[in-house]
Amino acid sequence: MKSKPVLSILGLGLIGGSLAVSIKARGGNWTVRAADRRRSALDFALRRGLIDEVADSFSAACKGADLIVLATPVQSIRSLFSSLAPILKPGQVVTDVGSTKASIVKAAAEIMPPDVPFVGGHPVAGTERSGVENVVEGLFEGKTCVLTPSDETPPEAIETVSRFWKELGSEIILLDPKSHDRIFAFVSHLPHMAAYCIVDTILTDLPSREMALAGGGLRDFTRVAESPASIWRDICLENSEEIVKAIDSYINRLGELREAVKRSDASAMETIFTRASEARRGKWIP
Amino acid sequence: MKSKPVLSILGLGLIGGSLAVSIKARGGNWTVRAADRRRSALDFALRRGLIDEVADSFSAACKGADLIVLATPVQSIRSLFSSLAPILKPGQVVTDVGSTKASIVKAAAEIMPPDVPFVGGHPVAGTERSGVENVVEGLFEGKTCVLTPSDETPPEAIETVSRFWKELGSEIILLDPKSHDRIFAFVSHLPHMAAYCIVDTILTDLPSREMALAGGGLRDFTRVAESPASIWRDICLENSEEIVKAIDSYINRLGELREAVKRSDASAMETIFTRASEARRGKWIP
Repeated sequence: MKSKPVLSILGLGLIGGSLAVSIKARGGNWTVRAADRRRSALDFALRRGLIDEVADSFSAACKGADLIVLATPVQSIRSLFSSLAPILKPGQVVTDVGSTKASIVKAAAEIMPPDVPFVGGHPVAGTERSGVENVVEGLFEGKTCVLTPSDETPPEAIETVSRFWKELGSEIILLDPKSHDRIFAFVSHLPHMAAYCIVDTILTDLPSREMALAGGGLRDFTRVAESPASIWRDICLENSEEIVKAIDSYINRLGELREAVKRSDASAMETIFTRASEARRGKWIP
Repeated sequence: MKSKPVLSILGLGLIGGSLAVSIKARGGNWTVRAADRRRSALDFALRRGLIDEVADSFSAACKGADLIVLATPVQSIRSLFSSLAPILKPGQVVTDVGSTKASIVKAAAEIMPPDVPFVGGHPVAGTERSGVENVVEGLFEGKTCVLTPSDETPPEAIETVSRFWKELGSEIILLDPKSHDRIFAFVSHLPHMAAYCIVDTILTDLPSREMALAGGGLRDFTRVAESPASIWRDICLENSEEIVKAIDSYINRLGELREAVKRSDASAMETIFTRASEARRGKWIP
């Protein structure tokens, strides 16, 4: 009897841990192994049955693994490629879950052995929480997972990674890495930058007693600003060019609205507000 | 036996209607009367038992009313003062529920008869929906209601309006009208402007197929952009000076963050992100 394929998750935070518990809940077709720098995360996961096996190092976790998922912060993935490159074997497939793709795919092409395919991945799912203690079973169900293969990625590797995400209930979208980063600069990174800056503006301009008057609108708006600072610092470092473009475009829009408000131009304001509220109501934005 | 005091609600939309149904649910201490330009809103409210009586005009609704709540859009309140001024009687108290206060309080001082007190009010509650069809019973429970009396407002009138909101479960905060408008420019109006501009930026820069990739962060962020355009146009017209200041401050923050991202300044980014996420987690912003 053929033993189960081994899924190895490197980095057991919110995403890695949710991956583990979700794939196990799908029927136990995989042996789920994990490694993390924090022993406490692994102990927690073993105790809760989120994973089947613990490895003492990232290298050890890769031994004999069929599918290796890099789920560490985006800034550490380049060095992970360097340390794994010498020990990976043909037949293994490597993917990741990072929120930026161009620099990671480029690093993989430069560092990884040519006979071990890397398929960039970005599950569009998460919460503002972090850490394995906050895992969510079924986090990827009904969500999109973007894969960003390059021209050199073997179709079978794309197929392996796609099948894995489909098993978790995700829908697969293929994008080239640069398009991915441009699109997500607008639909994800910009809203986070906007939220951080709203909170920062209010902190700077109002005493805390006055902030307490904030209504529900601000609460929703700033939920995203609860994400850990380090994650967004890293995303900004990885995708700086596209994020700068998105912020510039946003500042331009705000400047136009500012002018309309300044000169009490009701019709210019209404045009902007109507366009946005119709887009929202029309579910162009889900 | 003394008959119940009459509450007259002028303008039966989401706020006016929620006021009606919420005060009736609190034990029937008031006779709730309403007037609205749309006969259909009144019919709906009568049929659903949200109100006790319908008046054919705003003037008729005021006849014999003890407390008159103006719940029409902020831009129409000035003309409402003009049409009501000749018919109001000493002993009646007038308040409103508008999201801006300085220009309304100023108009009241100019137009209203000196022996009919006006107490500016702003219940910090609402949803992105509008219309009497979307009323929420208990909408004001546990919420803040800001009252903005002037130096001339008689204490008894403030007391009457305060008692009314407390009956609905709201906590009263007194602010002068200008402070109200400055604070709400930051904690409410700015987030709405920011949300409208985010949606507009994305609509402009991405084709709709790509927008479909937006994750939960954007969805929450843009919920506020579902509000009707006319409401925000009016708020911007009424509070333009403070809103322009808030947008300017926000654009400055975004510009600083943009520079940090542009020069890959990890520590500058982290400072901004940490400050904002700690403020959120520390519940300085509720």
